[in-house]
Amino acid sequence: MISNRGDHPTVRELEATRLLERYRAARSASTRFASFLEPEDCVIQSMPDVSPTRWHLAHTTWFFETFVLLAADPDQARFNPAYEVLFNSYYNTVGEQFPRPRRGLLSRPTVSEVLEYRASVDDRVERLLSAGGVEDSLLEVIELGLNHEEQHLELMYTDIKHVLFQNPLFPTYRAGAKWRPTNTAELRWIARDEGLRRIGSEDETGFAFDNERPRHRRFLEGYQLANRLITCGEYLEFIEDGGYETPQLWLSEGWRVVRQEGWNAPLYWRRAEGQWRIFSLAGDRPLRLDEPVCHVSYFEADAYARWARARLATEAEWETVANGESIEGNLLESDRLHPCGAGEPVDGRASQLFGDTWEWTATSYSAYPGYQTAEGALGEYNGKFMCNQYVLRGGSCVTPAGHIRSTYRNFLPPEARWQFTGIRLAR
Amino acid sequence: MISNRGDHPTVRELEATRLLERYRAARSASTRFASFLEPEDCVIQSMPDVSPTRWHLAHTTWFFETFVLLAADPDQARFNPAYEVLFNSYYNTVGEQFPRPRRGLLSRPTVSEVLEYRASVDDRVERLLSAGGVEDSLLEVIELGLNHEEQHLELMYTDIKHVLFQNPLFPTYRAGAKWRPTNTAELRWIARDEGLRRIGSEDETGFAFDNERPRHRRFLEGYQLANRLITCGEYLEFIEDGGYETPQLWLSEGWRVVRQEGWNAPLYWRRAEGQWRIFSLAGDRPLRLDEPVCHVSYFEADAYARWARARLATEAEWETVANGESIEGNLLESDRLHPCGAGEPVDGRASQLFGDTWEWTATSYSAYPGYQTAEGALGEYNGKFMCNQYVLRGGSCVTPAGHIRSTYRNFLPPEARWQFTGIRLAR
Amino acid sequence: MISNRGDHPTVRELEATRLLERYRAARSASTRFASFLEPEDCVIQSMPDVSPTRWHLAHTTWFFETFVLLAADPDQARFNPAYEVLFNSYYNTVGEQFPRPRRGLLSRPTVSEVLEYRASVDDRVERLLSAGGVEDSLLEVIELGLNHEEQHLELMYTDIKHVLFQNPLFPTYRAGAKWRPTNTAELRWIARDEGLRRIGSEDETGFAFDNERPRHRRFLEGYQLANRLITCGEYLEFIEDGGYETPQLWLSEGWRVVRQEGWNAPLYWRRAEGQWRIFSLAGDRPLRLDEPVCHVSYFEADAYARWARARLATEAEWETVANGESIEGNLLESDRLHPCGAGEPVDGRASQLFGDTWEWTATSYSAYPGYQTAEGALGEYNGKFMCNQYVLRGGSCVTPAGHIRSTYRNFLPPEARWQFTGIRLAR
Amino acid sequence: MISNRGDHPTVRELEATRLLERYRAARSASTRFASFLEPEDCVIQSMPDVSPTRWHLAHTTWFFETFVLLAADPDQARFNPAYEVLFNSYYNTVGEQFPRPRRGLLSRPTVSEVLEYRASVDDRVERLLSAGGVEDSLLEVIELGLNHEEQHLELMYTDIKHVLFQNPLFPTYRAGAKWRPTNTAELRWIARDEGLRRIGSEDETGFAFDNERPRHRRFLEGYQLANRLITCGEYLEFIEDGGYETPQLWLSEGWRVVRQEGWNAPLYWRRAEGQWRIFSLAGDRPLRLDEPVCHVSYFEADAYARWARARLATEAEWETVANGESIEGNLLESDRLHPCGAGEPVDGRASQLFGDTWEWTATSYSAYPGYQTAEGALGEYNGKFMCNQYVLRGGSCVTPAGHIRSTYRNFLPPEARWQFTGIRLAR
Repeated sequence: MISNRGDHPTVRELEATRLLERYRAARSASTRFASFLEPEDCVIQSMPDVSPTRWHLAHTTWFFETFVLLAADPDQARFNPAYEVLFNSYYNTVGEQFPRPRRGLLSRPTVSEVLEYRASVDDRVERLLSAGGVEDSLLEVIELGLNHEEQHLELMYTDIKHVLFQNPLFPTYRAGAKWRPTNTAELRWIARDEGLRRIGSEDETGFAFDNERPRHRRFLEGYQLANRLITCGEYLEFIEDGGYETPQLWLSEGWRVVRQEGWNAPLYWRRAEGQWRIFSLAGDRPLRLDEPVCHVSYFEADAYARWARARLATEAEWETVANGESIEGNLLESDRLHPCGAGEPVDGRASQLFGDTWEWTATSYSAYPGYQTAEGALGEYNGKFMCNQYVLRGGSCVTPAGHIRSTYRNFLPPEARWQFTGIRLAR
Repeated sequence: MISNRGDHPTVRELEATRLLERYRAARSASTRFASFLEPEDCVIQSMPDVSPTRWHLAHTTWFFETFVLLAADPDQARFNPAYEVLFNSYYNTVGEQFPRPRRGLLSRPTVSEVLEYRASVDDRVERLLSAGGVEDSLLEVIELGLNHEEQHLELMYTDIKHVLFQNPLFPTYRAGAKWRPTNTAELRWIARDEGLRRIGSEDETGFAFDNERPRHRRFLEGYQLANRLITCGEYLEFIEDGGYETPQLWLSEGWRVVRQEGWNAPLYWRRAEGQWRIFSLAGDRPLRLDEPVCHVSYFEADAYARWARARLATEAEWETVANGESIEGNLLESDRLHPCGAGEPVDGRASQLFGDTWEWTATSYSAYPGYQTAEGALGEYNGKFMCNQYVLRGGSCVTPAGHIRSTYRNFLPPEARWQFTGIRLAR
Repeated sequence: MISNRGDHPTVRELEATRLLERYRAARSASTRFASFLEPEDCVIQSMPDVSPTRWHLAHTTWFFETFVLLAADPDQARFNPAYEVLFNSYYNTVGEQFPRPRRGLLSRPTVSEVLEYRASVDDRVERLLSAGGVEDSLLEVIELGLNHEEQHLELMYTDIKHVLFQNPLFPTYRAGAKWRPTNTAELRWIARDEGLRRIGSEDETGFAFDNERPRHRRFLEGYQLANRLITCGEYLEFIEDGGYETPQLWLSEGWRVVRQEGWNAPLYWRRAEGQWRIFSLAGDRPLRLDEPVCHVSYFEADAYARWARARLATEAEWETVANGESIEGNLLESDRLHPCGAGEPVDGRASQLFGDTWEWTATSYSAYPGYQTAEGALGEYNGKFMCNQYVLRGGSCVTPAGHIRSTYRNFLPPEARWQFTGIRLAR
Repeated sequence: MISNRGDHPTVRELEATRLLERYRAARSASTRFASFLEPEDCVIQSMPDVSPTRWHLAHTTWFFETFVLLAADPDQARFNPAYEVLFNSYYNTVGEQFPRPRRGLLSRPTVSEVLEYRASVDDRVERLLSAGGVEDSLLEVIELGLNHEEQHLELMYTDIKHVLFQNPLFPTYRAGAKWRPTNTAELRWIARDEGLRRIGSEDETGFAFDNERPRHRRFLEGYQLANRLITCGEYLEFIEDGGYETPQLWLSEGWRVVRQEGWNAPLYWRRAEGQWRIFSLAGDRPLRLDEPVCHVSYFEADAYARWARARLATEAEWETVANGESIEGNLLESDRLHPCGAGEPVDGRASQLFGDTWEWTATSYSAYPGYQTAEGALGEYNGKFMCNQYVLRGGSCVTPAGHIRSTYRNFLPPEARWQFTGIRLAR
C-alpha cells in the first residue's frame, strides 16, 4: 500500500499494518493447531459444549467474512451461501443457526474445504488491510475478530482434549514442551486492606471486551488471597477425606450434580490398578501431585474451599491483586499444554495469576454498572450470557499470552469441567 | 414452672410468652389455609418445585419436632419414626430424605392424620414454652421455626394455585377480599446519588435470616428506581410488540427456555375467545390492565426491562430505597390474595415496595462478605442455595406482614414463575 | 314400556332384565372397591400406566354416558360438559383427551363428586333398561360397557397396589380372605399332539371381545404344557443362580431394561435384613415360596423359561389346553387378592389355568385372520393396540370369574410388571 | 496346499476354494463402498441406530478375527487388544462392548488404520483357507461371516444416506446407474387358496440364518397379495387425504410416534417451494411418482394399508408366493442405489418381490416352532432380537443378490425408517 499523503504513514495506516501482522499470526496459529490432527479427529463433537475442530476453523472464518468482508462490501458474495447458517454460532441478528448440538453430524465441508474457505477469506481480509483506508470501526471489528480467533484457539485445545478422551485408546494430541520439576511450597496468604477499589478496563488502554467496561468503583473488605493454585496433592487429600461423599461441603445444586454424574474426582482423572492416572493432551500418564489441580467445576472448587475452611475470591478481590502484575506464566507460548507447579514463592507476591489454570471466582457473571453492549449483532457477543455463569480469571496454559490481562473476565456455568479450570483460595 | 426469682417475669420468660402467642398464631394460620381445601387437593404435586399441602403441613411440624422437641429431649420418641425421612426436606445432616419429586406419590398419612401429628407436636411445644426455662438457643430455633412456618404458608398459597391451574375445570381456592379499583398513573423515577451504603441486617434488630448478615458497606453509583411495579397493561404492550419473538431482548438462557417451553405470556395468562384471561386463587377471570404483572420469570423481567430501555435494580439499590419505609402494602393480612394497583403516586416515594409481588433484582444470590452459616443442620437453611438463583425483594400479596423487612432476601432460579413475582424497573 | 305382544316377556326384554341385574352388580363392585380407601388414595397416579381410582370410577361412567346414554338420546345433556374430554381415555373418534400422564394432577371432581356422577348415570341407564325397547345394538354396547367396567375393576386393584407401594409406610389396601396353605408338588407336563386346531371365539357363544374373533384354524406341532404356574421358590433359584446378571438368558431388549431399571427381582419383592419380603394388597410380609411368582415382565418370564431349558407357550397352545376346562380358580370372588399355591396335581390336568396370575405367552398380540373392528369409536377398543404387546391368558386373582374365558386375550407391553402376571412353561 | 489323497480336490477343498473367492469378493465390496467417501464422512453416527462407516469396516473384520482366526488358533494375538471391546457389537459371550450410542465419538483408529486392520485379517483368513484342512464348523462360520459382511454392506449404504442427509448441503454419496423410466400400471391381486403350507428353510439347501429354520407347517386362509409395491404417487394420495392427521388410521403407538416426531411424509421427503423433493444417495432431487415409496415405518405401512382398505401380508403369505420365484430385481448389483418402477405387470405374477424395497409384513419377529440357537457367542446372532420387531421380506436395492432368498427374514422395530423399507398390500 502506498500512502498518498506523503512519506509518513498515518496512525490508521500503522494500526492497519499492526493488525495485518497480528491477523496472520492469529490465523496461522489456528491452522497450525489442526495440522497435528487427522481429518477424522476434526469431525467429532463429544458433548454439546464441545465443537468439532473443523467447525471452529470455519466459524472464526465466518466471523471475518460476516462482520468484516460483508460489512466492508455488502454486495460481495459469500464463499458459500450455505455457510451463513452453517457456521453462525449464536448471532440471532445475523439470522438462523445450524443447531449447536448437531455440529458433530456434519462431515462437509471437509477439513480441506474449510482450509480453502480460510485461505479465501484470509486473502480478502489481508488485501483489505493492505489496501488501507479501512474505517476505524472496521479496524475495531478486526481486532475483536482476532480476540475471537484466540478464544477459539483455546477452545480447540480444550475441545480436542475432550474428544480424544472419549476413546479408550487414549490418543495423544501432541506432547508439549518438557515439564519443569517443582516442589510446591506451603501455601501463603497475600493480605489486602479494606477500601474503595477501581475495577475494570480503562477506556484508553487498548483492546478489552465490552464486559470489562466501564471501569468503576467497588468497596472491598480486608481479605487475603492464596499465593498459588491448589495442587493435585492437596485436592487428593480432599478426596481421601470423603469430600465427594459429604453433602454438607457442597452447594445444593452441586451435590445434585455430583450424584447425578457420579463424580468422584476431577475430569480426566481415573483410577487404574490402584493408582491415579490423568489424561492430558500428551496422553494418559500417572498423576503428579505438585501440579495444580485442573478440570474442576465451580462446585468442586467451592466444596474444596469450604473443606479447607477458606472460600473463593470475588473477581474484584482477584483483580485488585493482579493489577500491576506482569503477564507472565505458563501460557500457550510456553508450549507445555498442561498446568505446572508454582515454583519457589516470592514474599508477598502471588504466583500463577496468569496461565496454568483459569481460576474460579465466587462472582456470578453480571454487567458492570453502566455496561453497554455494542449495537447490532456484535452486541450479542458477551452480554446475553450474563446468567447462571461464574467469572474465571487469569487464563490457562492454552491461553495466548497476548490475549489475557488483569481485567479479563471469562465465564462458565458452574458445572463446566472441560476447560483448564483450577482453584485459588481466599479468606 | 414458677419463677423462683420473685414476682417479676424474667426477660427470657417474657420472650417465651411472646413466642407462645406467636407460635399459636403462625401454626393456626397454616391449618386455616387447609380448611378451604378438599382432602384430594392436598395430595397433588403439579411439578417438582411444588409440594402437596399435606406435605407442607407435615414438614413444618417435622421442623419443630426435629429441631425443638428432640433438641430439648433427645430421648423423646418421634410421633412416627418413619416421618423422620418422610418429611425431611433437604437436611442432609439430619439424614436421608424421601425424594422431593415423589412427594405427590404419597397419600398417607392422610390430611387428618397430619393434623393429628400437628396437634401432638403443638401440644408439646406449647407445654415446653409454658413451662419456662427454655434455653436462649432453643428460643432462637423456635423463632426460626416460626419464620419457616410463614415461608411455607406462602408456599402453600402459591403451590395450590399451581395445582388447581392444572385442572381444566379451573377450581377456585377462595375469593379474597374485594379489589380496590385503581387508575395507574404514569411511572415516575426516584433518584439516589452515588455513595457508600450500608446493606444487610444489623445484629440487634430482631430476627433476620443468616443470609441477611452481616451488615456491610457497598458502593453504589447514582441510580433511579421506578416508583411502582409494572402493570399488566404495560406488559401487554411488550407482548404485542413481539417481545416473546425477539431473541435480541433476551438472555441466551432465557431465549432457550422461551422456545423450549413455548412461553408467550406470563404464567396463568391464557387467551380465550379473543381476550386475555388470568387464573387467580379466586378462579379464572378476565385480565385487568391496571394490576401489577405477576408470575413472570427473571428472564421475562429482564427482557421486559431491556425492551423498556431500562434495567432491573440490584438488591443493594432496592434496599437503599426501602430502608426506612414502613412495612405497608397488599400483604397476606389484606386478604386480597392477588396483587392490586398502585394507587395515587406520592412525590419522591416508591409505592408497592412491600407486598403485591416479589420484585426480581439483577443480583445473583450470594453470600455477603463475612457470611457465616449456623453450626449443624440449620446451617443448611440458606447457604447451600447460593448458586444460579436471583434475589427477590419486598414480599407479595401472600406474605405475612410480620415476615417481611427491607433486608429480606428471597431467591429463586431465573426460570421460576409460580411464585407471585413481578417487575420494578431501574436505570 | 309395556310389551304389546302379550303376557310373556320377549327375548329382548329378558336380555334387558339380565343386563339390568348384571349392571347393578358390576357397577356396585367398583364403588365397593373404593369404599376401602381414603379420598387421598384415590388421586394418585404413580406412573403413566396407572390411573387414579377417581379417574377409573369416572371413566367407566363416561363410557356409559357417551356410548349408551348419548347414543340413545343425542340431545341429552352431559352431567358436566367438561367431563367429555376429562374422562375420555383414548377414543380419538369421540374427541380430544386430557393427557394420560397428567391424570394424577387433578383433584376435582372429588371422589364424592365422582360418586354423584356415577349415581346420575346409573339412574339413567337403569331407567333405560327398565323401560325396555332398547335396540339390540345398544344392549350389546351395554354388555361391552360392563366388560369394560370389569376390566377397570381389575385395574383399580393393580393400580392401587402400585400407588400404595410408593409409600415407605407400606399402607394396606385390605386383607383378603385367608390363605390356603399348600405344598407345591413337582412340576409335570401335559402333552398334546400335533394337528390343526380351532382357536378363538365362536360367534354364538355369548360375549367376547372383537379381538377373540373370528374363530379360525391353526396348525400346532406337538408340545407339552406345564401343569401349574412357576412358584416363588422356583423363581428364587433363578435369582440365586445369577439369572439377573447373565445377559445370555435375556432378550436383547430385556437385558437393556434390566440394567436400566436395576431389576434384580420381581416387582414388589424387596430384601430386608437378610430375607425376602413381598408387598401385597394386605401390606408388607415375608415371601412365601409355594405361591406362584407374580409381577414379572415378559422379559423375566422369557429369561426364566430359557434358564429352565423350556419356553413360554404360544397363545394357541394355551387355548387348546384350556378349551373345555371349567372356569374355576383363585379369581376375584375368592377374595384372596393374591395368587396362591396350586394344591395337589391331578393327572393329566393343568391347574391354575384361570385365576392366580395372568400367564405370559410367547405370542405377540396381533389380529386373527379376518379380524374386523367395530364401526365408529368402539372400533378403537382393541385393534389399535396390536403392536409391541404380548398376549396373556387366564385371568388373575383380581379378575371377576364371569369376565374370563379360554379364548380371552389380554395384552401388555413386555416390560409391564404391575399387573398380576406370572409364568407357565411349555416345551 | 497339496491334497494328500490324489489328484482330485476333496469336497472340503472345493468348498474352501469357493469360500476364498467369495471372501475376496465380499470383503472388497465393503472397501469399495468406502472409496467414494471422505475420511470425515466415515466418522459420523447420526443416530444410535446408525454406525459410522469406519466402525462397520472394523466390526466385520473383528468378526473374522474373533470367530475365525482366534477360533482356529486361540494363541494368536489380536491385531490390537483394545479392538476386542471397541468393535464388539453385541456379543456378551465375547465380553464387554464399547457403548453403541457412542460409536460416533471415536476418531481412532482412523480409516487408514482400519483398512490396515482389514488387510491384516484378510491376509490371515485367506492363508487359512488356502492352506486347506479347515474344519467344516469353521467353514460354516466363515460362510456366516460373509453373510454378516453383506448385511453390513447394506447397512453402510443406509447409514451413510442418513449421515449425509443431516447436512443442509445435501452431499451426494454417488450417482447410481441410470434410471429405467416406467409407467406404473394399476395394482392387481394374486390369489392363493387356503391350505397347509411349508415355511422356512430346508436343511440341505445351502446357507440360511438360524432364524429361517426349522422348516415347518402353517395353515393359511385364502388370501390375495398385491402384484407390486405401492408407489410414491399412491402414497401421496394418502398424505393429501389427511393420512398423517387421522388418528383412526393408526396403531395407537404409531400415532404417538407420528405426533412426537412430527412425521408428515416418509423419511427423506421434504417440501420446498411448493413441490416434494427426495434425498437419495445421488443427492437431492424432485420426487418421482412412479417409484416405490420407501423409507416408511411399519406404522406408516400399516396406516396406509388401512386407508387403502387392505392390510399387510403375514410373512407366511409372502413366502408362499415368493417360493419358486427366481431372485431377480433391482438389487445391489443393478447399481441403481434407489428403488425403481415395477414395469409392465405379468399375469398372475408378482413383481418386485426381490430388491427395490424391503417389504413390511404384519408378522412380529419370533422363533419358528423348534427354533434352536447356535451354541456360544454366535447364538446371540439372531434370537435375542425376537421382541418388538417386525419381519421384512425380499431385500432392497442395496441388498447383494446372492444374499437374499424367499425364506430370508429381516426384522426392524416398527418405528424404523432409515432402511429401504416399502409397502406391499394384501387382503
